[in-house]
Amino acid sequence: MTATILFAARPDRWAEYEPHLRAALDAHGLDYRLGPAFPPEEVDYIVYAPNSEVQDFTPYTRAKAVLNLWAGVEHVAPNPTLKIPLARMVGGGLTEGMVEWVTGHTLRHHLGMDAHIVNPTHAWAPVVPPMASERPVTILGLGELGLACAQALRGLGFPVSGWARTPKEVAGITTHHGPEGLTAALSGAQVVILLLPNTPATENTLNAETLALTAPGAFVINPGRGTLIDDDALIAALDSGQIGHATLDVFRTEPLPPDHPFWAHPKVTVTPHIASETRPGPASAVIAENVRRGEAGAPFLHLVDRDAGY
Amino acid sequence: MTATILFAARPDRWAEYEPHLRAALDAHGLDYRLGPAFPPEEVDYIVYAPNSEVQDFTPYTRAKAVLNLWAGVEHVAPNPTLKIPLARMVGGGLTEGMVEWVTGHTLRHHLGMDAHIVNPTHAWAPVVPPMASERPVTILGLGELGLACAQALRGLGFPVSGWARTPKEVAGITTHHGPEGLTAALSGAQVVILLLPNTPATENTLNAETLALTAPGAFVINPGRGTLIDDDALIAALDSGQIGHATLDVFRTEPLPPDHPFWAHPKVTVTPHIASETRPGPASAVIAENVRRGEAGAPFLHLVDRDAGY
Repeated sequence: MTATILFAARPDRWAEYEPHLRAALDAHGLDYRLGPAFPPEEVDYIVYAPNSEVQDFTPYTRAKAVLNLWAGVEHVAPNPTLKIPLARMVGGGLTEGMVEWVTGHTLRHHLGMDAHIVNPTHAWAPVVPPMASERPVTILGLGELGLACAQALRGLGFPVSGWARTPKEVAGITTHHGPEGLTAALSGAQVVILLLPNTPATENTLNAETLALTAPGAFVINPGRGTLIDDDALIAALDSGQIGHATLDVFRTEPLPPDHPFWAHPKVTVTPHIASETRPGPASAVIAENVRRGEAGAPFLHLVDRDAGY
Repeated sequence: MTATILFAARPDRWAEYEPHLRAALDAHGLDYRLGPAFPPEEVDYIVYAPNSEVQDFTPYTRAKAVLNLWAGVEHVAPNPTLKIPLARMVGGGLTEGMVEWVTGHTLRHHLGMDAHIVNPTHAWAPVVPPMASERPVTILGLGELGLACAQALRGLGFPVSGWARTPKEVAGITTHHGPEGLTAALSGAQVVILLLPNTPATENTLNAETLALTAPGAFVINPGRGTLIDDDALIAALDSGQIGHATLDVFRTEPLPPDHPFWAHPKVTVTPHIASETRPGPASAVIAENVRRGEAGAPFLHLVDRDAGY
């Protein structure tokens, strides 16, 4: 029987995803219709981005599953009209993309690249950075993404410390946990990378008090969640020089509002929530595998426990 | 007997090196005098940078060796007044520094960072880069530095090809050699990294013909030697869009003259010959080991064959 698969994401994503999804579905020999619009009552699977126009799932009376394109499900899991299984994106290039973004921006700050990228006076001013082995990096959050970044940075020679809520042991990484551990993890850090989840306990993890613990002039890199930072405290620390620069990919409100002081601050780099974007190629393989499972009556992968919210 | 060690480099380097050199010499328990100025006839060892004011070695009548701080010896090896052993710098943080610089700038171009670092209109414009695994990188030159960079980039997921004059086999890297191999190595490359030595055979390796082989919009990264590129051909390729951006650390004349078109070109980033700068800490250990050997009558490490020139 032909499976009808609705692509429910921002319209500009359809052209990007269509060839990858077709290739992945064809690779399983599936019989399907795929498109960005079908009568709701004909749809079997909803390939879904939480910023899609589809917010009421009630008319999708025969749908078997919502297959999320994002790792984050906080904007769809609580939807009261969602009565069918919800699968989150796992893999899909998220980890690799995060490692590339975090490693790239860590090296950018470490090497002082900005002074060469923007050099209007054409100054030839050699400054030799310390070696990576002399530049301690601290990663807050040791989940899959934090661990992968820790290992990549360790591989380049940076001394890496990590902090998590509960104790973890990781080869080659100095780990800390709990509230006192946070003080130890941040003390003397020259680069601080935020990869904690968004929970009430992690809100404002970087605040006036914790920002004062780093080495003077440290770099803050946030590809995690906007809520992890007290924005006003960060701006004060940038202005005092305690923090040398902040590169931020996530914000309390996205897109970052035009009047937010981060935009114009000379020591802030804003990137538009791209660090952990799902990539169409590998994400399509994850989606197609779940459609195959649905058609074969097999259990879906990566189902969300909607009571826990993840 | 007290060894007299002259530090003959740019004056601003003395303060940077002095503590590291003393620590390394002390670690061997050596009896020495170290400074930036001594009567030439009292000097036993010359710690040397080729841009030092010392260009005539004739007055250094009792010196046992010139211990070069740079890996490159082309500006000192041919000096006709040099009649004593010349040791080049090996190690000294050169390889690690090069890997950091090459990996950082490759990720910078791969991720399109410049559009976020310089964003005067405060545009929130998410563009998701391809995965590293979809971005072929070619390294010209598979010596110690080229190999180390190849392995680091491979570790981040980039498909890496390499080219050398003679055949080499390297696990995980597609290798090419010889003139026809150069065409294969450059064809379709999205990032081209130059790490060839400066010899008559490598001059203008990137020229109008070879620049036309890359993928359209490819990035050129040159931490090798200024002579490897035909500057006019590179500017033409940047202007046509065949090359998307060039990040250059080395030039035919250094510092890069103020009127050189690279400075003002919007698609060129100039860095001031910092990619492979010796780092004082590890370099001092190499120097101290050679002084120890000289004092013990043992053979010096890393001696230059001055007929071959390296």
